[in-house]
Amino acid sequence: MEVLWRQGKPPNRSETSEISSASRDPMRICVIGCGAVGSLFAAHLAKAGEAEVWAYDVWKGHVDAIRTHGLELSGAENFTVPLHATSDPEQLPRCDYGIVATKAIHTRTAIAQVAAIFDNNSAVCSVQNGVGNEEIIAKYVRFVIRGTTFPAGHAVAPGHVAFDIQGDTWIGPFEPSHTPMTKVVELAGLLTRSGMHTIALQDARGAQWTKLIFNAATNPVGALTSLDHGSATRFGPTGQLFEDLIAEGKAVAEKLGIRLHGDPWAFVEKGANAPGQHRASMLQDVLAQRQTEVDFMNGAIVEWGAKVGVPTPLNLALWTLIKGLEHSWGEPE
Amino acid sequence: MEVLWRQGKPPNRSETSEISSASRDPMRICVIGCGAVGSLFAAHLAKAGEAEVWAYDVWKGHVDAIRTHGLELSGAENFTVPLHATSDPEQLPRCDYGIVATKAIHTRTAIAQVAAIFDNNSAVCSVQNGVGNEEIIAKYVRFVIRGTTFPAGHAVAPGHVAFDIQGDTWIGPFEPSHTPMTKVVELAGLLTRSGMHTIALQDARGAQWTKLIFNAATNPVGALTSLDHGSATRFGPTGQLFEDLIAEGKAVAEKLGIRLHGDPWAFVEKGANAPGQHRASMLQDVLAQRQTEVDFMNGAIVEWGAKVGVPTPLNLALWTLIKGLEHSWGEPE
Repeated sequence: MEVLWRQGKPPNRSETSEISSASRDPMRICVIGCGAVGSLFAAHLAKAGEAEVWAYDVWKGHVDAIRTHGLELSGAENFTVPLHATSDPEQLPRCDYGIVATKAIHTRTAIAQVAAIFDNNSAVCSVQNGVGNEEIIAKYVRFVIRGTTFPAGHAVAPGHVAFDIQGDTWIGPFEPSHTPMTKVVELAGLLTRSGMHTIALQDARGAQWTKLIFNAATNPVGALTSLDHGSATRFGPTGQLFEDLIAEGKAVAEKLGIRLHGDPWAFVEKGANAPGQHRASMLQDVLAQRQTEVDFMNGAIVEWGAKVGVPTPLNLALWTLIKGLEHSWGEPE
Repeated sequence: MEVLWRQGKPPNRSETSEISSASRDPMRICVIGCGAVGSLFAAHLAKAGEAEVWAYDVWKGHVDAIRTHGLELSGAENFTVPLHATSDPEQLPRCDYGIVATKAIHTRTAIAQVAAIFDNNSAVCSVQNGVGNEEIIAKYVRFVIRGTTFPAGHAVAPGHVAFDIQGDTWIGPFEPSHTPMTKVVELAGLLTRSGMHTIALQDARGAQWTKLIFNAATNPVGALTSLDHGSATRFGPTGQLFEDLIAEGKAVAEKLGIRLHGDPWAFVEKGANAPGQHRASMLQDVLAQRQTEVDFMNGAIVEWGAKVGVPTPLNLALWTLIKGLEHSWGEPE
C-alpha cells in the first residue's frame, strides 16, 4: 500500500474502506488559513477523526490557543476539539489533501509557503471566496480542486470561532489540472461524514459563480452600510440593491455559458433567515481596516463582464467604493 | 419711510443709498441654522456692519460661545466678530431678510420656529444643499429666494468654524413666490460687500442644479469611503465614479430644460485644489451618525429622473447605501 501510494496510485478510499488504517500512513489533511471558515473545516475534520488534521495559519495567537486548549466552535454547533496547528511550514508533514481557506488576497503567499508538503498525488481544494484562487494554487500544486462553501462564521477570540451560518460545500476538478474525480469524491465523502455536507461535481463552476454573485452583492453592501446580512436583506432599499447586483452577475455568468447552481437570491434569503446577526466577511475586514477580497468578487465580475461585453455598472460602483475605503486607510489623518 | 416700509413698499436700497440709517429701523438679517455654512454668512455680514445680524441655532453651546466670545472663523480667513445669537425664537426681532442654512432635513422645523419674525416685506433665502428647500420655506414666508452657495467649512468647536473652501453664491427669485428682483439684488449686494461674493440671477435653478449634481457625486462617495474631497478626486476609481454620477445628473437637468451654471466637474476640481483636506458635509454627518441630506441630493436626482424618464442607477445605488448606513445606526449592536 505504502509503495503504491508513493508511486502515485492512491487507494480509492470509497472503494477500500476495508483497508485498516494501520496498513498505511494515516490520511493527512492540511487546512491552510485557519480563520473563520478554515476553522469550521478543521474542527469538523478533527472531530470526525478519519484523518490527521493540521491547521496552518500565520495568526500565532490562534495557533497557540488551538495547541493549548483545542479549537472551539460555538453557535450553530458547540464543541472543542484538539488538532495539530502551526505557523511554521517546516513543521507540516506531507499531506494528501489541502484545503485553502485564506482570504483570496493571501492565496499566493500561503500556497507558496506550504507547497512542499504536497506531492504529485496530493490534491488541494480552494474553499475561498471569489474566482481566481484555483489558478494561483495550480502554479504550485499538481491537482487542484475547485471549491465553494457557504458556511460562515467569525473569529470570537484566539482558538474560538463562532459558527454563524450552516451550508453546503460544492467541489469539482479544476479543469486545467485534470484532477481525477476519485479525489474529488474522496474529499467530499470525508467532509460530508465530518458534518460539513459536500457535493462532488464534474463541473463546479456553476456553484462557484452562484457564491461569487451572492458574495458580490452582499459583501460590499454590508461593508459600506455596516448592516448585518439579515438587516440588509430586509431593509427595502438595500434588499433591492442586492437584487440589482445579482442581476448583473447572472447576466455575466449566462454570457459565459456557466449554469448557476441555484439562484443566488435563495442564498441571500437563507442567510437572512439564519439565527443571529452575521456580518459579511468584508464588513469584518472593513471594521478591522484589512484589505478586502473585492478584487476577487465585484472586480472579477466587472473583469469577466468586460471580456464578454456585459455591462456591470453597479458592480463597478461597489468595487470603486470599497477600493476608495481601502485607499482612505493608507492616508494620514 | 417707516410708513412706506410697513405698507409693503420697501425702499430699493441700491437706489436709495443716500437714505441715512437713522431715518429708519436698521436692516436686520437672521441666519437660520448657524452651522458651518451659516456661520460663514453670519460672520461676514456681522463684520461688514451694514445690517444687524442675528444667528439662530438650536446648538446651545455654539450660541453661548458666540454670545460670550464672538464668532471665530479660521482657515481661508481669520477673524472673530461679535453678533447676536439665540436658540430662542422669541428673542428674535422682526427681520428684513432670512438666510436659511440648516441641513435640508431640518428646514421645515427651523422655518416653522422662526416664521413669525418675517412679514410680507421680508425675503428668506435658502443657501442649503440639494433641491426642495424653497418649496418648504414658501409654506411659511411670502417672498422666498432660491440660493446656492459653494463656500464650505466645518465646525471646530463651539463658536469656532473653519473656513475650508471659498466660493461664490448664486441667488434668484423662487419662481412660485414671485419675489421681486430688487430684493434679490439688495441681498446679493449686501453679501458681496461683506466678502461673500454673490451673484443675483433671474433664474437661479441652473446654479442650484450645478451644485446639486456636484453634491450628489462628492458627498455620498466621501461619506462611504471616508476620503476627503481632494483624495477622492485624485484617486482614479472614485474620481471616475464622480464623473459617472455627474453624467447622470446632467442628463436629468438637460431633460428638465435646466441650463447648468458651469460644469459641476469644474467645482470638483476647484475643491480638490483648495488647501487643506475638506471632508464632505455628508462624511461629517456620517462620522457623527447624524441623518444625512441624501434625500435632497441623490434622492432628488433619482426622483426627478424618474419623472422625466432619465435612468439614474448610480445615484440610486449611492442613495441606497447611505440610507442603509443611516438604517444601521438605529439598530442594536
